[in-house]
This record gives sequence, C-alpha cells and structure tokens, in this order.
Amino acid sequence: MSGSTYGNIFKITTWGESHGRGLGVVIDGCPAGIPLCEEDIQRDMDRRKPGQSRFTTQRSEADKIEIMSGVFDGMTTGTPISLMVLNTDQRSRDYSAICDVYRPGHADYGFETKYGFRDYRGGGRSSARETLARVAAGAVARKILAELGISVDAYTVSINDIEINRNNFDLSERFNNPVVMPDKAAAQRAAELLDSAIKNLDSVGGVVECLANGLPAGIGEPVFDKLDASLGRAIFSIGAVKGVEFGLGFEAAKIYGSQNNDNFFFENGIKKKTNNSGGVLGGISDGDTLVLRAAFKPTPSIAQPQQTANNKHENIEIEIKGRHDPIVVPRAVIVVEAMTAITLVDLLLMNMAAKIDNVKKIYCGR
Amino acid sequence: MSGSTYGNIFKITTWGESHGRGLGVVIDGCPAGIPLCEEDIQRDMDRRKPGQSRFTTQRSEADKIEIMSGVFDGMTTGTPISLMVLNTDQRSRDYSAICDVYRPGHADYGFETKYGFRDYRGGGRSSARETLARVAAGAVARKILAELGISVDAYTVSINDIEINRNNFDLSERFNNPVVMPDKAAAQRAAELLDSAIKNLDSVGGVVECLANGLPAGIGEPVFDKLDASLGRAIFSIGAVKGVEFGLGFEAAKIYGSQNNDNFFFENGIKKKTNNSGGVLGGISDGDTLVLRAAFKPTPSIAQPQQTANNKHENIEIEIKGRHDPIVVPRAVIVVEAMTAITLVDLLLMNMAAKIDNVKKIYCGR
Amino acid sequence: MSGSTYGNIFKITTWGESHGRGLGVVIDGCPAGIPLCEEDIQRDMDRRKPGQSRFTTQRSEADKIEIMSGVFDGMTTGTPISLMVLNTDQRSRDYSAICDVYRPGHADYGFETKYGFRDYRGGGRSSARETLARVAAGAVARKILAELGISVDAYTVSINDIEINRNNFDLSERFNNPVVMPDKAAAQRAAELLDSAIKNLDSVGGVVECLANGLPAGIGEPVFDKLDASLGRAIFSIGAVKGVEFGLGFEAAKIYGSQNNDNFFFENGIKKKTNNSGGVLGGISDGDTLVLRAAFKPTPSIAQPQQTANNKHENIEIEIKGRHDPIVVPRAVIVVEAMTAITLVDLLLMNMAAKIDNVKKIYCGR
Amino acid sequence: MSGSTYGNIFKITTWGESHGRGLGVVIDGCPAGIPLCEEDIQRDMDRRKPGQSRFTTQRSEADKIEIMSGVFDGMTTGTPISLMVLNTDQRSRDYSAICDVYRPGHADYGFETKYGFRDYRGGGRSSARETLARVAAGAVARKILAELGISVDAYTVSINDIEINRNNFDLSERFNNPVVMPDKAAAQRAAELLDSAIKNLDSVGGVVECLANGLPAGIGEPVFDKLDASLGRAIFSIGAVKGVEFGLGFEAAKIYGSQNNDNFFFENGIKKKTNNSGGVLGGISDGDTLVLRAAFKPTPSIAQPQQTANNKHENIEIEIKGRHDPIVVPRAVIVVEAMTAITLVDLLLMNMAAKIDNVKKIYCGR
Repeated sequence: MSGSTYGNIFKITTWGESHGRGLGVVIDGCPAGIPLCEEDIQRDMDRRKPGQSRFTTQRSEADKIEIMSGVFDGMTTGTPISLMVLNTDQRSRDYSAICDVYRPGHADYGFETKYGFRDYRGGGRSSARETLARVAAGAVARKILAELGISVDAYTVSINDIEINRNNFDLSERFNNPVVMPDKAAAQRAAELLDSAIKNLDSVGGVVECLANGLPAGIGEPVFDKLDASLGRAIFSIGAVKGVEFGLGFEAAKIYGSQNNDNFFFENGIKKKTNNSGGVLGGISDGDTLVLRAAFKPTPSIAQPQQTANNKHENIEIEIKGRHDPIVVPRAVIVVEAMTAITLVDLLLMNMAAKIDNVKKIYCGR
Repeated sequence: MSGSTYGNIFKITTWGESHGRGLGVVIDGCPAGIPLCEEDIQRDMDRRKPGQSRFTTQRSEADKIEIMSGVFDGMTTGTPISLMVLNTDQRSRDYSAICDVYRPGHADYGFETKYGFRDYRGGGRSSARETLARVAAGAVARKILAELGISVDAYTVSINDIEINRNNFDLSERFNNPVVMPDKAAAQRAAELLDSAIKNLDSVGGVVECLANGLPAGIGEPVFDKLDASLGRAIFSIGAVKGVEFGLGFEAAKIYGSQNNDNFFFENGIKKKTNNSGGVLGGISDGDTLVLRAAFKPTPSIAQPQQTANNKHENIEIEIKGRHDPIVVPRAVIVVEAMTAITLVDLLLMNMAAKIDNVKKIYCGR
Repeated sequence: MSGSTYGNIFKITTWGESHGRGLGVVIDGCPAGIPLCEEDIQRDMDRRKPGQSRFTTQRSEADKIEIMSGVFDGMTTGTPISLMVLNTDQRSRDYSAICDVYRPGHADYGFETKYGFRDYRGGGRSSARETLARVAAGAVARKILAELGISVDAYTVSINDIEINRNNFDLSERFNNPVVMPDKAAAQRAAELLDSAIKNLDSVGGVVECLANGLPAGIGEPVFDKLDASLGRAIFSIGAVKGVEFGLGFEAAKIYGSQNNDNFFFENGIKKKTNNSGGVLGGISDGDTLVLRAAFKPTPSIAQPQQTANNKHENIEIEIKGRHDPIVVPRAVIVVEAMTAITLVDLLLMNMAAKIDNVKKIYCGR
Repeated sequence: MSGSTYGNIFKITTWGESHGRGLGVVIDGCPAGIPLCEEDIQRDMDRRKPGQSRFTTQRSEADKIEIMSGVFDGMTTGTPISLMVLNTDQRSRDYSAICDVYRPGHADYGFETKYGFRDYRGGGRSSARETLARVAAGAVARKILAELGISVDAYTVSINDIEINRNNFDLSERFNNPVVMPDKAAAQRAAELLDSAIKNLDSVGGVVECLANGLPAGIGEPVFDKLDASLGRAIFSIGAVKGVEFGLGFEAAKIYGSQNNDNFFFENGIKKKTNNSGGVLGGISDGDTLVLRAAFKPTPSIAQPQQTANNKHENIEIEIKGRHDPIVVPRAVIVVEAMTAITLVDLLLMNMAAKIDNVKKIYCGR
C-alpha cells in the first residue's frame, strides 16, 4: 500500500525511478477491442519529453514507450497492458553533495523519515520523471474517451503574474509556443519572464487549466467518489500542485448564490445558461464542459545557494547542480490531461452498473 | 461501488438520506483498545447540528448518536463500529413543486440521469445532512489522533468578501460567534453581511481553513496516495467545495522558487524556517503544521424566483421553499475537521508498514 | 481494514455482535431501479432464523429486518441500502465461567491475541449470528440475479457419514425436512444421527452443495479474481468451513485428463457433454451450471467437559452451557446461497466493462 | 478491474502472456530496508522453470528475473519493486488449428465470450506461464517472512491414486525427486504412473500440501478477510485448482465435535494438543502450524483426439500439439508456496494496526 495503484475498474500501477533502469505502468481493466499501438502512446510521451525548448531540462531521453503485454493483433485484449520506458541518460554523477541533505522544497526529509533511508539519485520515486508512466496510461485512457466522443485538453493559463487574455483564447496556439499557452502574446511575455528567471538562477510557478468536452451527465459517485473529489485527488497527486479548483473555484466563495447558480433550460437537451459549476454539481457531471485548474509551485531545485540541514543534524549551505526545469508547468500540461483522462474513464466504467436497465442491456440484450 | 466507502485501513461507509429513517456510518478498522462513548461523538455532532444560530436551518433535529456495535466495556474492540442517527423531524411535505424540477446549483439533473429517477425529498443522498455521518466518524478518528498527540482545528477565514485579520487571530474565539471565525471583529461584520443576504433571499459562500498540529514527518504515500492528494479528495468530497489548497496554495504559482522554498534547519529536531508548503512536500508530511483551505460556494437553495427546466423538458420558474442555511460554511467547519482527521488516521495506519523495522517492532518485540 | 467489507462494485459492509444492540449490513453499489421491500429480505432471514427445528438453538429471535435507507417508492435508488436487525433475546447471563477461557474449536485465543482483549459475550463478532447480515445482503443480490434469469440453490448433501442418494435427488424436498436435504430418506437417517449426537452432548459436521443456473459464460476475471477464487474466498469466509471444491473437486485429482475434460459441442449454443468443471474453466464461467461444495466442521460448542487453558495460563476443564446448534449445516445452507449470490452479482457487474462494445452500448446507445 | 492486482498492503500486480514479449509483476507496499537481489528471486524461479525433468514441458526458457525498480544499494526502498522476465522461446507456430477452437478443459470459450476475441497463442493470459510472476513476488514475500521467523513449505502429497505414506515423511526428500514428494518410495511409484500416462497421451492430477511454521496467533481478519478465506482465494486463483482445504478439511465434516475440537493447554505458551484446525480457528491463526491442501485437476492439454466445437459453431475433432506437462503438480508446488507467502505477508502487515498499543509502539516509541 505504498500508493502506486490508482483507479477502481481502469486501474493503473506505476513503478520506476528517475535514475534506475526504467519506469513503467501496468493498466489493468482496459476494455478489450480498442485499437492500440505504440505510436498512439508515443505522441503523448513526446509532449512531456525533456529537451524540447530552452525552458526544459537538457537531459537527453528518447522516452521511447514499449508495449510489453495486453495487445494482440493491434487490439487491446482486456488483460493487463504493461508499458515501459528504459532510462538511457543516467549520467553517472557524484551524489556525495546531496545524498545526506534535505533539499528545500523537496520530499527528502519526509522520504527518509518514512523509509529509514532514501534513493537520493535524482529524487528517486519523487522525481517528476515518475509522471511519464501516467502520461502513457493517459494516452490509453484517451483512446477510450475518443470512442465515446469525449476530449480532454489542457493548457497554461498563467505563469507567475503573466495571465492569458481570455479574449485572445486560441486552443490550437498552445502547441506553437514553449509555454503551452493558448494566447500568443501572453506566451511571449511569459517566455521573457522565464529567461529572466533563468538568468537569476530562480524558478517560477503557474496555473494549468483543463477542459473535458462531451462528458455525459451522471458521471461521478454521490459521496466519496464524486467527480470533483476523484479529480481533486488525481490532480493533487501530481508533484508540485498546491491548489485545485473547479469552475469558478475560489471565486465562488466571494459571490452570491443568485450569481453563482447556473440556470438550466431545455433546448435540444437539458443545458445550462452559464457554467460557473465547471460541469460538476453535487459531485456528478451536469453535462456541461468540465473545467478544472491546478496551481503549480515554482520548481524547488534552484541553483542559488540555499540554507538547509542534513541528516547529520548540521546546518549547511547547498547549491543544487544538475539539469532542472525553471518551471514545471509546460511539461505538466500533458500530465494534467492524462490524470483527468484516466479518472474520467474509471468513473465512466464505474457508472455503467448504476441502474438495472444498464445491466439488462448488457446481459439480456435490452 | 456507489462510492460510499472511504479509507484503506480506517475505512468508513456511510448511509442514509435526509428524509429517510436515519443516517449512519460503519467504521471498520478502528484499532482496539480506545476508550469510546456516545458523549465523545455527540460533542462533535452538536457542532454541526441545525438550529444553533439564526444562520442555520431551523429544522429541529437532536442528531442523537447511537453506538450500535464495536464497543465493549467502554473500549473499541477492533471490530466494526456502527453509529446511527434516527431522523426525527421529517415533516411531511408536498414535494409536487420540485419532484420533477432540476434546481439550479443542485445535483438533481445528474442524479436523475445517472439512476433513472431520484429521491427528491430534501435532496436524498446529496443532502448536506449526509455529512453528519462523517462528523460521527471524525469524532472517532480524533480520539485516535489524541492518543498520538495530534490535533485538528478548522475555522472560517472568509465569508463573501469579509476576511479575518491574521493579526487578530484567536483560535478560541471561533466558538464564540455564529460564523466560527477566529476574529471577533470580522465575525461581527460577516454576521451583518449574512443578515443582509437573508433579507435579499440570497446566500453566500466562504473559505474554511484547517490546521493539523503534531503530525509526524513521513506521513502520506509517494504517488497516488500523497497526503495532499488524499486530503484533496476528502475535502472535495464535501458538497459545495469548489477549491482546495495547501500552504500558499494558488499564491505559490505567483512567486519565485527562492521565495517559496522553505529552508530546513536543525534545532532540537529538523524544522523549517517558514511553512509555505503547508506541512506537505512531495506528498509527504514534513513535520510542520498541516495547513489546508477549502472554498465553499453559496448555498444553491435560495428563495428568489429562478429560471430552470424540469424533466418534462419545460422551461419554468421556481421558488424554493423550505428550511435552508443562507451559508454552509459555519456548519461545514466541523465536517472539514472530520474529513481531515479520518484521512490522517488512515494514512498514519497505512504508514506503519513502511519499513521492516516497524514490522519487527510489532512482531519481534523490537 | 478489519475485513468487514466485501465486493468491488456490489460492496457489502457488515457490523454487529451476537449480544450487542443488533447487527446489520450496508450494501453500496446496488443498481437503481430494482423493486425491493422488507418481505423480499425477510423470506431469506426466516430460513436461517433460530428455533425452527429441534436441531437449532432455541434462542428466540424474530430477526426482523428493517430497511433503513436506499429504497424510495419501493425501488432501490442506487445509494447505500442499510439493513438492520435489532437483537431482542440478549438474556443477561453470567459470563464469568468463560470470559477468560480459550474454548476449544473457537477463535477466542486468536481474537484476544489480536486485539488485546475480546468481547466474550456469545462470541462477539465471531458468532454465527454475524451471518444474518450476509443473508440480508444475499436476498438483495438474489433480486438482481432474478432480473437476469439466474437462480442460486443450496442444500445439504451429507451430515457426518449420511449422504444423499443422487438418484433420489428432489430439490423441492429440501424445505420439507429440518436438515435441508433434497432426499427424504437420507434426511430421515440424518435426523436420527443428530438425535443421537444431542443425547451424547456432541455435535456433527456436514457438506453443503450450491448450484447456480443461468449464469452466462465469461463471468470471472482471469487471474486473482477468478470466479472460483472469488467464490472460494466467499465460502471460506463463512465460519466453520474447512474445505471448498468446484465440480469434481478433490476427485479430479484422482482421474485422468481424458476422463476429466468436458467435451464442448454446439446445439443451440455452445454446451458441454459433462460438467466435471462445475461450470468454471480457467476461472471463468463456461455457461454450464455452477457447482460448489463446502465442508463444515462440527459445531465447536459442545456440552461435554473439555480440557483447555485460560488467559491466566491455567490448564482447566470447562463445560460450555448455553444454546448451541448440534450442527451448523441446516442454517448454513442459506448463508452459502447468500455468499454465492453476492459474489456472482459483483462479478457480473465487474464484467460489464470487459469490452469496449459494452461500454458503447451504455454510452452511445449502441 | 480485470483482477490482476492482489493484496491490500503488500499488493502485487501481474502482467504478461505466454507468447508475448515477457511477463512481470509490480510489488507495491513492500517495506523498506529488506536486503534483496536477483539471486534471492531466481532461486524460486528455478523451481518452476520448465525443462527440469521428463515430466515438464521441454520449452526452453531461462526465466531470468530482472529487478527493474524498487531496490537501491541492495535494499528495498519501500517503493514499487518491478520484476520482469523476457520470453525467449516463442517459437513461431502455426495456430490455425486451434485459433477458433474451444479446447476441452480450457478457458477458451469463456475468454472469447468475455472479451469478444482472444489471444490464442499458448493460452495468452490463462497460460500456466502467468504463475512465474507470482513466484517472483512470492520470493520477495518469503524474504519478509524470514525476517519474522516464518517459513512456508509445500510438497506433493498425492498424484492420481499414489499417496505419500505419512510415516515416511521427509521434507528434504522433496527436492530429490521430479514429483516433489517428501517420500522416496511414493515418488518412485508416481514417476512410473506418469511414464505410463505419457505413453497413453494422457495426463493426471494430484494434491499439494503447504505448511507455514512460525506464524503468530492473531493473524487474519474476523469476517471476509479471514486467514483461510484469504488463502482460499489465493490458492483457487492458481489455474487447475479444483479444491482447497485446511487442517482435516473435508474429513472434519465426517467426525464428531468431541473428536474435531483441539484442546488448548499451557506450556511455555498457549498450545494445542492436536492440530485438526490446521492452524486457523474462526478465520484467525491459532499459533499452530498452518496446514492447507490444494487439489489440481489433470492437465487439460492432452494429445489424444478430442471432440469439441469451434467458434463457427461446428462440432469437430482436435489433437492438441505442442509442449505440455503431463501433470501440473510438481511445478505448482512453488506457486502454492508463493501465494501462501504473499497472503501471509499481507495479513501480517494488515494486522499491525489491530490495536492502539501497536500504533503507539510505532509513533510514540512505546
């Protein structure tokens, strides 16, 4: 129960360390009969791969995904899909400077207290590299969503104090700039801010927004497995996330009920005049676009000298060397999409048994 | 899998509807040997009971908790603790006005789509009354935390645009005012704002903050069961929550790494100079005070006329009658505490097997 | 995680002690839209109720089931169904003779070692009375199976050395005799054997067989949640079961592959010429009748003097007083049916998401 | 939820197919601080490797285990341990003879009904080769048991009608003969019977017994996660098992309570005069040796012509070619040990939180 398994029906289990032999994920419970090949997954892997812009670590990894099981004749078989990436760039380094140090903003102290010792090479299991397994599983989840006409799209809405202008919103633009913003002008300013941060040996944070379109109403379970509770867990499980909100989020706490309530109306289906809810009411999807946002803290690894302590109980000064992103947000966008897709698939599959009519549809042919 | 069970080792299962025969919770996995009586639980129940101020519904319920099993000779036995509250004030009402209506801001439409029909009496399972089962379980969790020297305390930090002044922070003050604010002056202004909202047949939202003191470092699991991911799910599972954050939360996305990183130092133990992390780094507790905040939307039930649709696909106007709080926050404070306590207990018990030394301590007497 | 929750989608959680206030079960994940009333459940409860023949304890309990939640307008709502039985006959007894004794054949020593102390009144949680909660849940599961045309029927096949004659098999006969045997003559002989055992202050064991008809092929999951593995756990979870087998069971280990293999043939569907498999191959239902058998040990509580030890580490002699069945088998028959029904429902619901065509049938209307 | 994950705290997830790229297992929740290297695991792998005697398939596989993650500096880190075996002998074969056939005694029909199609190469996921992942995980579990002084040993007790003579029982002998019997003479006769079966193109079954010594009292959870219920599921999850029993097993149903009850006595600890219980009472370990037996059916793949049907609904005759063991028992012995060890470790870890004194031992240093 070290928490590496996620999901109830569509269940993923991840493994691997930043500087070990590789990383991977086993997906158990993927329905049979879905066309799947390595290219389907590699496409998403490439979106989080390092070395794609001057704002990401220059570690050179192909992050080439391999399907080890669960696919036969180009189709998922219903049995576990094992996906693996071998690490190729594990530069042999001298870790003596950090192996006993509690780096500020990192989980070193927590890990060491918990387990008695820790894998200090590149953060071990707490490395952001762990997320590549999620992206791989997310690509498979996305294939299922596509069969049901559901899409999941995330992008950067702010970096430090640079926010996108909603009037200039252009989703397709996000792939044209290194900060994954759907607003060209804001992306330009954000890039300048990042250049300056790099120069100052500093790092910055930002906010990612994620939309799911096509999600039917009725998804999410009433009490502890609410749609937003499940997604909340999923998104907070991504390292560096310090806040999550749906729809108006924290702003909803500042307005009146008469302003916040979305009015329903009928017009070729039940719809809402506004979407302050972000697509979720009482923990269940309301048929509208799902909208969530996640706040990422600045990368904790910065090259400036920092005061800290080590496990010999000495107060010391450290300078963190190595290859670190000055911001995690651009590469985290696809991770947010992945965790959202995985969670939606799981809740969609869980919901299939919600009413006896559905059960009869499967077993009694209607 | 309708999501009414929560927790891995300390596992709770809740049941019941607002206008059914009663509500309850079964706690499975509570360690044996903890002194427990009904008064221990009633104390917390009374903190969320309706009718305690002019800002809560006047529904008259004693919310008297009964221990049905799992306690013998005043001690928990290690077997399931069943706790129950019978509903007493189920006024027979005429539901014809709302039984087919999708109330704005409510889960009616989602529930009906999911299950084919719904229990329209008082919201059924989506009623805020469902939270009393969580408070009962939370009271038991708190007993365990007390044995380990851990306390959990929540309070209101803002209502609409009225925020507490951190310079006037006085935790004990929270029980002296009906809005549960740890700042007497802010509470006074919030009460005035609420009086005005009631007059306008409107409702407001607010933000609750929760602290856990005494939590050891090392709690939380590395990937999907991170401390913040688990708490994120727990808090988002409370109805009306639209945002959750830890430590600096969304503010962390706006500052530099050099500002956000908390420096460790040694002085009678490993400590941090600041607590921007809110007590959690990489998903694992860092030994500092846990700090989380939850944003609650305004109560969706308002007495103003509202436009909406019904399940006959008619666009209509409704006025919601009945007994509704103009704000959920003051009664939600104890629910936030409860979900936090339950989650911490579960993670503490899960962490016991993290290292072989712990296993040997139990089975080989060290 | 004290193991009182069972099932993945159709999930039951039981609570209660023999001599506490009552016992009950919460069923989470029952599909919405199934007609359900207390009589549906009471019918099964009455089959395990004490006091129905001279071979069952004379404890006088009505075992009246109450539906506390989850049913509205006579239909399941999809939310938790809480079922409860209050204990009425908790004769105040003097437990001083057994409170510190480890009764032979009982779990006293294990419980005390595990929890540090135990509820010695009537066995507490290890009492056979715990099974009434399973029977209640089983009655609900059976309603779902009925909607799908699946029936579950169990009966006694042997008591001590008295076995039924398969040539005289008459399923309907089982309700005409106190030992629940589908063979009148064998039942008569078994009754005589029981009378003699009672006279000798002794107890006997026996074997229960259970059939499920109408189960479609394809149910059960390939590896750890095999149909037989799931049922094996379910049946072994019933107190006093010491052996479980499917189809030919232990006999299969004594014959050749050419004898044991069932030949498939097509005739209005794929069928098998024999059913040595007992309806399960490779852990997945093969479309034939499911056949399982469970061996129950003799009731451990016997009135003869017995040598044992107590928790003061004294070697002593005890005589167990009180109301005890000389055999558990007749009342266990309905418990075997219940656990089988619950397990089949869970696996049927889990199987719904096995192929993408099923998922599309639910969400894309084919 | 295709059932490839097993365990609650010590949780294993297996993947892979007989004729795919490889097979593996991810172990999540293994305590940190246990010395582990590939040799520790390879030792057990070699016990189930094909080609070791004339009674096992001549498929040539090294079954070389690779540790992909979770071990650092020769110690488990507490994070997921990923173990993998690449398939090397995947002879390209012509499957046209069996790809649409429902082989007698195999899961072909069930798989195809469930998933809509199946991986027909070597049984895919239902191949006995799947068990190598369990053996690998079992080797890790055994390392933990060793730290606690618990051993797990299995052996063959019967093959067809050849049974061991308990008077000649010699555990060490089991590794000296190809049928893994702890009785040299019986092993000799069993080998002759097998030679004869091979000559007749037939197969046979047998019974495996497994002992666990050193298991403390108090292990197993009271209701659904009983020690025997958990082991029952674990053992029935091994392909070809048709029956499981504990202690006297089915024999207990044929004797009187006065004969079956084991008397407790005190002599340097609480002990039992006999062990009819097989070490488990009321689902909880009683401190005595755990004794379980599993009946394996004859290998279904036999070279004799057999009548069956195919998915074109034709009744046909087939002859199964390929490399098949005439009996699964000798290679299944280590699989029974593995599943027993995995289950015991999980229950031992789950039991750690059973009483508050244990919790305080970990967090309050007593």
